[in-house]
Amino acid sequence: MDESIKKIALLGMGTVGGGVYEILAKQKPNMPAKIGSTLQVAKVLVRNKAKYADKVPADQLTDQWSDIIDDDSISIVVEVMGGIEPARTYIREALSKGKHVVTANKDLMATHGHELLEIAREHQCDLLFEAAVAGGIPIIRPMKQCLLGNDITEVMGIINGTTNFILTKMAEDGMEFDDALKLATDLGYAEADPTADIEGYDAGRKLAIMASIAFHSSVTFDDVYTEGISKITAKDIRYAHELGYEIKLLGLAKLTPEGIEVKVHPTMIPLQHPLAAVKDSFNAVFVHGDAVDDAMFYGRGAGALPTGSAVVGDIMDIARNMQYHCTGRIGCSCYQSLPVKKMSETRSSYYIRMKLEDRAGTLAALAGLFGSNNVSISMLLQKAKEGNTAEVVIVTYDVMEKQFMDSITVIKTMSMVKEISSIIRVHHA
Amino acid sequence: MDESIKKIALLGMGTVGGGVYEILAKQKPNMPAKIGSTLQVAKVLVRNKAKYADKVPADQLTDQWSDIIDDDSISIVVEVMGGIEPARTYIREALSKGKHVVTANKDLMATHGHELLEIAREHQCDLLFEAAVAGGIPIIRPMKQCLLGNDITEVMGIINGTTNFILTKMAEDGMEFDDALKLATDLGYAEADPTADIEGYDAGRKLAIMASIAFHSSVTFDDVYTEGISKITAKDIRYAHELGYEIKLLGLAKLTPEGIEVKVHPTMIPLQHPLAAVKDSFNAVFVHGDAVDDAMFYGRGAGALPTGSAVVGDIMDIARNMQYHCTGRIGCSCYQSLPVKKMSETRSSYYIRMKLEDRAGTLAALAGLFGSNNVSISMLLQKAKEGNTAEVVIVTYDVMEKQFMDSITVIKTMSMVKEISSIIRVHHA
Repeated sequence: MDESIKKIALLGMGTVGGGVYEILAKQKPNMPAKIGSTLQVAKVLVRNKAKYADKVPADQLTDQWSDIIDDDSISIVVEVMGGIEPARTYIREALSKGKHVVTANKDLMATHGHELLEIAREHQCDLLFEAAVAGGIPIIRPMKQCLLGNDITEVMGIINGTTNFILTKMAEDGMEFDDALKLATDLGYAEADPTADIEGYDAGRKLAIMASIAFHSSVTFDDVYTEGISKITAKDIRYAHELGYEIKLLGLAKLTPEGIEVKVHPTMIPLQHPLAAVKDSFNAVFVHGDAVDDAMFYGRGAGALPTGSAVVGDIMDIARNMQYHCTGRIGCSCYQSLPVKKMSETRSSYYIRMKLEDRAGTLAALAGLFGSNNVSISMLLQKAKEGNTAEVVIVTYDVMEKQFMDSITVIKTMSMVKEISSIIRVHHA
Repeated sequence: MDESIKKIALLGMGTVGGGVYEILAKQKPNMPAKIGSTLQVAKVLVRNKAKYADKVPADQLTDQWSDIIDDDSISIVVEVMGGIEPARTYIREALSKGKHVVTANKDLMATHGHELLEIAREHQCDLLFEAAVAGGIPIIRPMKQCLLGNDITEVMGIINGTTNFILTKMAEDGMEFDDALKLATDLGYAEADPTADIEGYDAGRKLAIMASIAFHSSVTFDDVYTEGISKITAKDIRYAHELGYEIKLLGLAKLTPEGIEVKVHPTMIPLQHPLAAVKDSFNAVFVHGDAVDDAMFYGRGAGALPTGSAVVGDIMDIARNMQYHCTGRIGCSCYQSLPVKKMSETRSSYYIRMKLEDRAGTLAALAGLFGSNNVSISMLLQKAKEGNTAEVVIVTYDVMEKQFMDSITVIKTMSMVKEISSIIRVHHA
């Protein structure tokens, strides 16, 4: 076997697969200089070979997994098919046979990452997944290597391009959510079924992966609290701007003495925060470490070529590791097992927009009630009046979620409260 | 020799050395879990041992290089003394004896990096220098690994915290340069002799290193055009804001068909550009690759702990590489030799603020003169009038530096031109 040629199998030829294929073809002449060997796509696994006949040479196309797993000359398997099965089985089998794996599959890594990394370790294989978080943005390797001298205490990010596009349109053009979602769908930023993006599941998966790496403790998607953006209104965004905030769908992971907080929800962040300037479909991940202080990584979180860039970077790294016989060097980094806090035990400050009966003493009664539930008010603003209804906006100080929600339960029963229009968490630091 | 203990020598115990020492002490208990071995500071080389007697145990302190270079149990040398000599000699000797080296020394790497990486290669040693560019911000490893599947065509950054602090104060508080510099000095952001920061030399060194890595072709500090910020006025910043720009000291490296452009100069960038939001002493590096599109890396570009974070990340990587016998895996990546363009051959658009005689036909004559020198005007604004003098601001389209400067030479001779008050390059994309 010619050691200077590394044979690769691509599983899947969708958006990301197409991007990987294109980049590998373009970079082929540079490979010997860049990594000391040549990467050759030996097989491309697809369901329907005919569909790709004009893009991929016939001898590369296969619809049989056995053509790949039984071919000992293939040393790197690139899984870009998505979904849990058969991806999980294929990766398990590949690693078990000593093949190295690159995957862009966040669903899989957020749920079964630990198990797969364990199999990789047993076989001294590389299992790399830079593309599974924030597309083309380098974030996993920086956390696992560059920032390894830090105790990372916080990871916070805009890690879903679809929702960031929608929120940007709402903020800049005053669009309502439904219209902005329709525009995102028309432009191809949102999928036909946008649930995973809109409800924060996609961001939750990426957050689980990043939290595991940052805190060296396994966090899975099930651990992550998720809340989507469908209830955000243009009015809330306008009010947020008046108060000096931008509304973003954030994934927030925090290490506290009592355990790990991991949550995805719409969040008001100060306009001067670097994440507030991240617009359209761009992603950004903010990391706080005890030594590095604040760092941020910004770029395209999706798309064929940006995601392909991350996948190909991983492939090239593996090829180099194979050359030096040091694969499996950087594997699972979860060397501890920390508890994950319940959402009700996490802390935040809150923005509440509500409609009150417009009569003397209402605000005092409301403030009193929050106070008696140990919720301190940092700001209370009377906005529009309509008939005998007044619209009021309140921002609280930092409080435990359970305490806040209990106070809201009580407040809802007050006769002077006509409507709790919206509740949005506020991030100060 | 116990393979699970890696002995380190620190050369220098200044700001960065102190940060490295502190981080290594704090992370000591985590090292076995994080990298599979323990890092032990065996020696700290200083000029005056007495000065550090209360910080460093006596058996670690030495003022003799021979205590380090002749000690075969020391496998990693960490150079944080700065300057060219004796750092260069020490690193050459260390590498020649098979010791791995981490350095934070941008002056050295920007001038002699190629030579030192060559010695490292000969001895299969690691020579890592993440801290030499943009302090704590991971940028070298991301470019050398994560983005290796890209043809990087542009690197652009705010890579000097002192000047960014000064420009931020000028922009936000309307301070003039001298006052902002004084504030920076008082707060410890600027050194007693601020020349290297103010004149762009520091940024130029970092840019040379980044350009070499991005374009796989050796660029040294001598290749970089540098222009500082001392001529920038609060008025220009105010006018820039009116036109929709922020003024930043940028390092710009660009790959063109005719060669590499590398320049450091004050630059107007659009207010909505991610770099425009980078304030105070923060740094950020913007990278454009053909696959990843735009990516940005943001964080603290200086300081004991942020820079120490990058140094310790490198040390831990080396320890892991030693464990797997794969040091020297990623060395010099300059596999081609591209020409560097002369400044006069680079292109830009320009902002010019000037004082003209205030009479009919002046603007037309001026526009005509630019036109006859092939400089197209994109914007021409009449600002303040004073007596029979009018202040005029012009923004040109993209033009070759030489052509623009030639036209300025001619314009200066016109009797109606009282003063060319300032010329600032404008970056559009």
